[in-house]
Amino acid sequence: MKSPTATLLFSCPDQRGLVAKIANFIYCHNGNIIHADHHTDFAAGLFLTRIEWQLEGFDLSREAIAPTVASLAKSLDATWQLHFSDRVPRLSIWVSRQDHCLLDLLWRHEAKEFLAEIPLIISNHPDLKAIASQFGADFYHMPITKANKAEQEAKQLELLNYYQIDLVVLAKYMQVLSADFLSSFNNVINIHHSFLPAFAGAKPYHQAYQRGVKIIGATAHYVTPDLDAGPIIEQDVVRVSHRDDVDDLIRKGKDLERMVLARAVRSHLQNRVLVYGDRTVVFA
Amino acid sequence: MKSPTATLLFSCPDQRGLVAKIANFIYCHNGNIIHADHHTDFAAGLFLTRIEWQLEGFDLSREAIAPTVASLAKSLDATWQLHFSDRVPRLSIWVSRQDHCLLDLLWRHEAKEFLAEIPLIISNHPDLKAIASQFGADFYHMPITKANKAEQEAKQLELLNYYQIDLVVLAKYMQVLSADFLSSFNNVINIHHSFLPAFAGAKPYHQAYQRGVKIIGATAHYVTPDLDAGPIIEQDVVRVSHRDDVDDLIRKGKDLERMVLARAVRSHLQNRVLVYGDRTVVFA
Amino acid sequence: MKSPTATLLFSCPDQRGLVAKIANFIYCHNGNIIHADHHTDFAAGLFLTRIEWQLEGFDLSREAIAPTVASLAKSLDATWQLHFSDRVPRLSIWVSRQDHCLLDLLWRHEAKEFLAEIPLIISNHPDLKAIASQFGADFYHMPITKANKAEQEAKQLELLNYYQIDLVVLAKYMQVLSADFLSSFNNVINIHHSFLPAFAGAKPYHQAYQRGVKIIGATAHYVTPDLDAGPIIEQDVVRVSHRDDVDDLIRKGKDLERMVLARAVRSHLQNRVLVYGDRTVVFA
Amino acid sequence: MKSPTATLLFSCPDQRGLVAKIANFIYCHNGNIIHADHHTDFAAGLFLTRIEWQLEGFDLSREAIAPTVASLAKSLDATWQLHFSDRVPRLSIWVSRQDHCLLDLLWRHEAKEFLAEIPLIISNHPDLKAIASQFGADFYHMPITKANKAEQEAKQLELLNYYQIDLVVLAKYMQVLSADFLSSFNNVINIHHSFLPAFAGAKPYHQAYQRGVKIIGATAHYVTPDLDAGPIIEQDVVRVSHRDDVDDLIRKGKDLERMVLARAVRSHLQNRVLVYGDRTVVFA
Repeated sequence: MKSPTATLLFSCPDQRGLVAKIANFIYCHNGNIIHADHHTDFAAGLFLTRIEWQLEGFDLSREAIAPTVASLAKSLDATWQLHFSDRVPRLSIWVSRQDHCLLDLLWRHEAKEFLAEIPLIISNHPDLKAIASQFGADFYHMPITKANKAEQEAKQLELLNYYQIDLVVLAKYMQVLSADFLSSFNNVINIHHSFLPAFAGAKPYHQAYQRGVKIIGATAHYVTPDLDAGPIIEQDVVRVSHRDDVDDLIRKGKDLERMVLARAVRSHLQNRVLVYGDRTVVFA
Repeated sequence: MKSPTATLLFSCPDQRGLVAKIANFIYCHNGNIIHADHHTDFAAGLFLTRIEWQLEGFDLSREAIAPTVASLAKSLDATWQLHFSDRVPRLSIWVSRQDHCLLDLLWRHEAKEFLAEIPLIISNHPDLKAIASQFGADFYHMPITKANKAEQEAKQLELLNYYQIDLVVLAKYMQVLSADFLSSFNNVINIHHSFLPAFAGAKPYHQAYQRGVKIIGATAHYVTPDLDAGPIIEQDVVRVSHRDDVDDLIRKGKDLERMVLARAVRSHLQNRVLVYGDRTVVFA
Repeated sequence: MKSPTATLLFSCPDQRGLVAKIANFIYCHNGNIIHADHHTDFAAGLFLTRIEWQLEGFDLSREAIAPTVASLAKSLDATWQLHFSDRVPRLSIWVSRQDHCLLDLLWRHEAKEFLAEIPLIISNHPDLKAIASQFGADFYHMPITKANKAEQEAKQLELLNYYQIDLVVLAKYMQVLSADFLSSFNNVINIHHSFLPAFAGAKPYHQAYQRGVKIIGATAHYVTPDLDAGPIIEQDVVRVSHRDDVDDLIRKGKDLERMVLARAVRSHLQNRVLVYGDRTVVFA
Repeated sequence: MKSPTATLLFSCPDQRGLVAKIANFIYCHNGNIIHADHHTDFAAGLFLTRIEWQLEGFDLSREAIAPTVASLAKSLDATWQLHFSDRVPRLSIWVSRQDHCLLDLLWRHEAKEFLAEIPLIISNHPDLKAIASQFGADFYHMPITKANKAEQEAKQLELLNYYQIDLVVLAKYMQVLSADFLSSFNNVINIHHSFLPAFAGAKPYHQAYQRGVKIIGATAHYVTPDLDAGPIIEQDVVRVSHRDDVDDLIRKGKDLERMVLARAVRSHLQNRVLVYGDRTVVFA
C-alpha cells in the first residue's frame, strides 16, 4: 500500500517566483514532492500547476492544509483544488441501452486501473440492470420524456446527493442535461462519438459516413450547457476506408469510445485535469 | 524499365457477372492483369473497380482499347476512365507564400515517388519563384484581387491549356477557385489544414487552438464549388497538448499537410482514386 | 438475416487469366460475387485471392462446389479453402490468469462483432472459471508441468476433437505448445505482448522498459513450432514516455493486446487471412 | 525577438526539497521561470529536471551562473548542463548517398523550426555536394575503407574541432563510428531505419519484409559503441500491408526517418533530452 498523498491543482496569473513559493510551502512543512508539473499559458498570462506530495512526514495536519493553501492562493489571486489520495472518489455512471462503455469502465475498475467507488448507475432504459447487479451497483431506471425531464432531473440530483457522488460519467447516456441540472452539479464527463467539433449533435457516424471521411474519432469532454461544446479532455481516432459502411464505423467507433472515455475518467480521477475557460490542461 | 500497362477505372450499377465480364474482356485479348480491385457500395447499389494489365502481349491496339471499353460500358451503364502508364501526367502546382508543400512535392518528384511532369507553377505572390527555377518549372506570378479574379482565372485556364495540364494541385494556394473556373477545369486537389469537416474556412489552426482540441489534422480533397466540401482523398492527424500554442499547431500541421497532400497526389496519379457523389474510393 | 455466402481462399502460381477463370466459375453458375480481392506477390510469383458470393441463386449444390473448385485448383496447381457463412466456426479460448483478453473476446462475441460458437475454455489455472460459467462455456482446468505436458496436450487434443473446435485462441495462455501438438492441430492464434520481432520470449514489457523504447506494441500471429515466429496477422502500437514505468507499460499494453487479438480473430473468422510461407495476406 | 533564457538540465539522487532548492536559486536572484519540468524515476531513485528562465532581470551575471549551479550540484551529488538560448549550437550533418534526411533537416533549419548553425557536411560519397553548396555549408568527401578508417576518423575529429561542432547528426551515414571516435566526441544522434530493437544491423527494411510485419518504424538514438543500442530519443511507426513490397517499405520508411530524426534533433537542440544510463527523459 502506497503511503497517502495530497494533490494540489492551482492556477493563478503568472508572475515571478510561483514555483518557488508553492514548492517552499511544501518543503518548509517537510513534505516530499513526488510529482510536480507546471504549465504557463503565455497567451492567457496564466500559471497552472499540479503538485503531489506524501502526507507521511508532512508536519501540517490534514485539516490545516486547506486553510494554509487558501491563504497562499488569496495572495496570488489563485483558484485551487486539494485532493487526498485515500479519499476515494465516488462515481455514478449513466447509460442508455449500449453496454460497451459501461462494461469497459466496470472492468477497468475491477482491474484497479483507477481508484473509485461506483455505487450508482442510472439509465433511461432498463436494459443494463443486470450488469449493475453483477458489479454490485444500485440501478435506477429513470425514463426521460419532454414532460417529466425537470422532475426526473430533480430526482437525479437527490440521488447524487444521497450517494455522495463526486463525478457523473455519461457512458452513452444519449440525453442532454439541462442548464439547471448543470448549475447544481457540474462535474460531468461525456463521451461523444465523433472527433469534435466535427459531427456534433445526433448520429455522428451517419454524418461521418455521408461526408466520406477517412478517419473517425471520439471525444471525451466536460459537459456544459452548450451541447458538445465543453472543454475537451481526450480524443482519439481510427482510420476508415470506402470498405467501411455505417455499421463498421459504429463498430470501430465503439473501441474508440471506450478507450477515450476510460482515459478521460482516469485522468480526472487522478486529479490531472485542470479546466480553464473552454480548455483543459491534462498533466501527463 | 517496367513494361507499360493500361489501367481501367470503371463503375456501374451492381449486377451479376461484372468481375467476370471485365476480366474476360482482358483475358480474351491475352492481357495479363497485375492489379485488380473491386468494391461494391451496397447502399448505393454501385460496383466500382480498378484493373491494371500489361500492354505487352495484349492483342488489342491502344487505339482499339477505348472503343471496346466504351461498348462494354454502354451495355452496363458505366462511367469509366482509361490510362496508359507511359503517358506521363502533367501537373501544375499553385502556391501562395508557404513553401513546404511545394518543396515536398518537388522532392518526391525528383525521388521518383510519383511519375509526372511539373512544367508550371502559379502563385499569387512572387516569393517562391526561385524554387520554381531551381526545379526547372515555369513560374507565373498572378496576384488575385476581387476586381481581377475573373480575368486572372481566364488567363490561368489558358495556361493550363497551353501547358496541357492534367491535374492542378493547390499546395497552400489560399485562394478560392470560382465555380466558373471549376466548370472549365475540374481536376483539382487541395490540401486543407484541418481535419475536415472540423474547422472549414479560414485560420483552422487558430480555430483548433481556440476549441482546445487534443488532435489536429489535415485533409486532401478534390475541389468543388462548395468551399472545403469536396470528396476527401486522404486525411491524417497528429496529437497536440496544452503545451502547444498556435505556432506549434502550425509547425506540426505543416508535416501533416505535406504528407497528406503527397499521398493524395500519388494516389491520384496512380489512378487509384474513383470519385462518386461526394465520396471517393481509394484503391490500396 | 443476410443470405448465406460461400467464400473461396485460393492461391496458385501467377499466370494469365486467373481472375477471369475464377470469376467465370462463379458467373457461369449464376453466382453473385459480393467481395473479390486479389493480390499478386511478384517476388514469390504467387497469385492469391478471396472471393465471396451469394449461395442464393447459385446453381451448383453445396456438395458440388468443393469438387468443382478442386478440379479448377488442380489445373492451376492451387491450394484453397472453401467456407460457408452459415457454418458457424467453433472457438476454444485458452487462458492463464489474466482475464482482459478473454473478457474482451466474450463481450465482442455477445455484441455480435464476430460470428462463432465458444463452447470450450481451457486454462492452466482455475482463476477464470467463473467467467466461463457466466458466458456458458465449459471450463477445463489443466495445469501444465514439465512432467505432465505431453499427457495434458493429448487430453487437450481430445477435447478439441470432442468439441469440434476449428480455432484455438491463446488469450494470454503463457504456455508454449509443443511441435507434436501443432502437428495435430495447427489452427492456433496467439497474442504476444510486444511488437514482434522485438522482445520475443518472456517478460516483453520488462524488456521494453529496460531498453527505453518510446513505443510499445502487441502482435497477433499464428502459432508455429518456432516460438513467437509464426505468420503475423495484426500488430498495433501505443506511445509511451519516461513517465511510464513497467506497470504503466503493462496497463497500456493490455488495451493493445485485446484490440489486436480481437481484430486478428475477426479477420480469421471472416476468412480474410491467407497464410503463405511465413507471411499472411489479410484481405481488407 | 524573445529575450534570452538559461536552461538547466539537472539530475541527482532523489530527496526532499529538490524542487524548492532549484526554484529558490532562481527566484532569489530574481529570475522568471518560463518552463519547469521534473521527473522522478522511482526505480532508479533519481530526480531529473529541466528549468528554463529569463536572463533579463536575473541578477547573477552569466559568468556567475555556472559556478553557483556547480556549488548547488555538488551539495546534491548532481550532474548538470547549462545552456544559454542565444548561444547558437553548431551542427554537422553526416550523410552517405541518400538525400531525404539531409534535405529535410536543411529545410526545417531554413524554416526556423530549430535554431542552429550548420557549417559542415561530411560524406563518404560525393553525391550530395551540390546540396551542401546550395545551403551554404562546407562539404567534405571522406571515403571510408577498412584500411583508412582510423586515419579518416582522426581527420573528422579535427574538422569537428575546427568548426566548433556541438552535435553530429548521422542522417543516413551508413557507417559505424569507432569506440575511439566516440570517446573523443560523444554527442552524436543517429537515425536507424527500423523500430529498434527489431531489425538492428543492416538492411532493416528487407528484414522487416521477410518477417512479414504489419508495421514498420524508425528510431533516433544517441550513438554509443554498441551498434544500434544507444539511448532512444524518438520513434515512430507506419502501417504496412501485404501490398507493400520492399520498395514500398523503403519509400514509406523515408518519411518516418525524416520525421523522427527531425523531432529528435529539435528536442536535443532545445535541451529537452536528458540521458541517464541507457535511457532518456525527453521533456515535453
